[in-house]
Amino acid sequence: MEKNIKNKKQLTELRQDLVTGDWVVIATGRAKKPEEFAANKRVVIEEDSTKPCFFCHPEETGQEEDVLMYQTAEGEWSLRVFPNKYPAFSRGRIPKHKEEGPYFAMDGTGYHELIITRDHHRQIAHLDTLAVAEIIDACQDRYINLMNKKSVNYIEIFHNHGKEAGASIVHPHTQLVAIPVISPYIQGELDGAEDYYRASKKCVYCTMVEWESEHRKRIVFENADFLAYCPFSSRSAFEVWVLPKKHKPYFERINDKEKMALAEVLQTTINRIYTALEDPAYNFYIHTSPCDGRDYPHYHWHIEILPRTSTWAGFELSTGIEISTIQPEVAAEYLRNI
Amino acid sequence: MEKNIKNKKQLTELRQDLVTGDWVVIATGRAKKPEEFAANKRVVIEEDSTKPCFFCHPEETGQEEDVLMYQTAEGEWSLRVFPNKYPAFSRGRIPKHKEEGPYFAMDGTGYHELIITRDHHRQIAHLDTLAVAEIIDACQDRYINLMNKKSVNYIEIFHNHGKEAGASIVHPHTQLVAIPVISPYIQGELDGAEDYYRASKKCVYCTMVEWESEHRKRIVFENADFLAYCPFSSRSAFEVWVLPKKHKPYFERINDKEKMALAEVLQTTINRIYTALEDPAYNFYIHTSPCDGRDYPHYHWHIEILPRTSTWAGFELSTGIEISTIQPEVAAEYLRNI
Repeated sequence: MEKNIKNKKQLTELRQDLVTGDWVVIATGRAKKPEEFAANKRVVIEEDSTKPCFFCHPEETGQEEDVLMYQTAEGEWSLRVFPNKYPAFSRGRIPKHKEEGPYFAMDGTGYHELIITRDHHRQIAHLDTLAVAEIIDACQDRYINLMNKKSVNYIEIFHNHGKEAGASIVHPHTQLVAIPVISPYIQGELDGAEDYYRASKKCVYCTMVEWESEHRKRIVFENADFLAYCPFSSRSAFEVWVLPKKHKPYFERINDKEKMALAEVLQTTINRIYTALEDPAYNFYIHTSPCDGRDYPHYHWHIEILPRTSTWAGFELSTGIEISTIQPEVAAEYLRNI
Repeated sequence: MEKNIKNKKQLTELRQDLVTGDWVVIATGRAKKPEEFAANKRVVIEEDSTKPCFFCHPEETGQEEDVLMYQTAEGEWSLRVFPNKYPAFSRGRIPKHKEEGPYFAMDGTGYHELIITRDHHRQIAHLDTLAVAEIIDACQDRYINLMNKKSVNYIEIFHNHGKEAGASIVHPHTQLVAIPVISPYIQGELDGAEDYYRASKKCVYCTMVEWESEHRKRIVFENADFLAYCPFSSRSAFEVWVLPKKHKPYFERINDKEKMALAEVLQTTINRIYTALEDPAYNFYIHTSPCDGRDYPHYHWHIEILPRTSTWAGFELSTGIEISTIQPEVAAEYLRNI
């Protein structure tokens, strides 16, 4: 860890938009010269069969030391977690605040870890349920380990698959980023859930689970504990949300039975998306309550899966209104019947 | 217009996220079967030298009729505006509201127009100032024409350049979309500007113009009327904002002198981005006050230019916190010195 803290180049900064209050990260760790941003000079780390894979061979390729490792009965590693060598947020003390005239910034202090499954060629669509449950278990383990750190107020767990989804390394990996601020999207959901509860004395997510379970037209897959469905206001074609059927504000409290149930729903859904869209790029991520010391009894943690079926253009970037070109009901029916 | 209204397939729907209140568009006009979303089957309209370009030959390729046309002294068309054949919002009466259980939706009624410059091969980076001023003039003309329609509360003008920026047609074109709702991003800026004004009795954008003009380290280019600079909290590498130096809430009130000044700053900035990043994909868009009948005295219209130098991945999609890998000050210096 010392090594990383000493490496000044990897320090990142959180800057606040003076108008909206939103945050951006200026992460110059993988620092490039301005000319390296040119369209034809961008280096994308990708499959190169002449070099050893970073994640198949973490030691040989100089990755950071493991913070967690799972082994098979035969003593082989099956999953390992280590800090990202090029973190978006870098380890350190409580973030210092900075001002520049009217502007506000703070150190981008936090944690950025990689959760690696062993098989280079086996993506989540093709893992067995136990292996997916192991990923979920590792996420929970690391979440609990980091949630009380002084610099951490929110922990984001996400997975990028495919180049169009921003995955720069082919070997399947899930990421955990622990950050000092609560992100605008989570804040929007917390506020919305709170407002809905105040108005109707019900959890807004429970309301959706109930409606979808009853009407069934947007359901993709379900088991006793989790429901996967295409949301009424899908932002992209074939978007799927996975929700605990019971009201649960905190991901980190997931129990072993629920981990297996979630693994089944997540793996099945991703496998169907794989089949339906022929191995598309996708992202999924967990949205859960912040770990800032406050309680969020009216929030309901869940996973959002976003296949990258289109490119956001000027309209989406400008307005925040996304355009989907298929009805969620049609997408759900297609995924349901695979 | 009749033709379009009758075409049921092109009707679009605005659906509201039950949690956040944000809107999405379900636009099934270019309707595809579910299987057509598969990664290898996606049809991208692109350069195909064997077919006539839609925008070079609007009549021959069955585009809709012009709503505006500019001609040269020789009687040749130099710019034309016509409705998008595949609109994200389709013309119609006041949008009907719909409910489905807890959910809320409305017709995606509005206008979606294309502003086409004549030369197939000449992108904005290479147009002369007069031609860019003509685009701005056409945007203003169409804005004023549509702003008082009953179904219109916000008008978004944007430009996509390059495939990674979502441009599906190579021929340079700017788009105007008039919509019945105020987008979440604009609402965030309106609220932020209002809050800032209440707290400090100053426009937040004027505050930035003043600070940037004094400190100069993030300036890219300027003239008497407009300032182009890399924002303190840039969301992507080489992001540039173009602001009127004086406090101006309403784009549609731009005068002829300002149009020429804006054309100079916009064209110069885009040309420098073209040179610096070797013809990257980019989007730019205008953010201006809504046209919903209310006044927005504390807002300050502007243009945001976003070169697409990276791919948003799970972290950005999940949190709304974007990661930029170059300091805005370094990017600005590079663009300034080209």
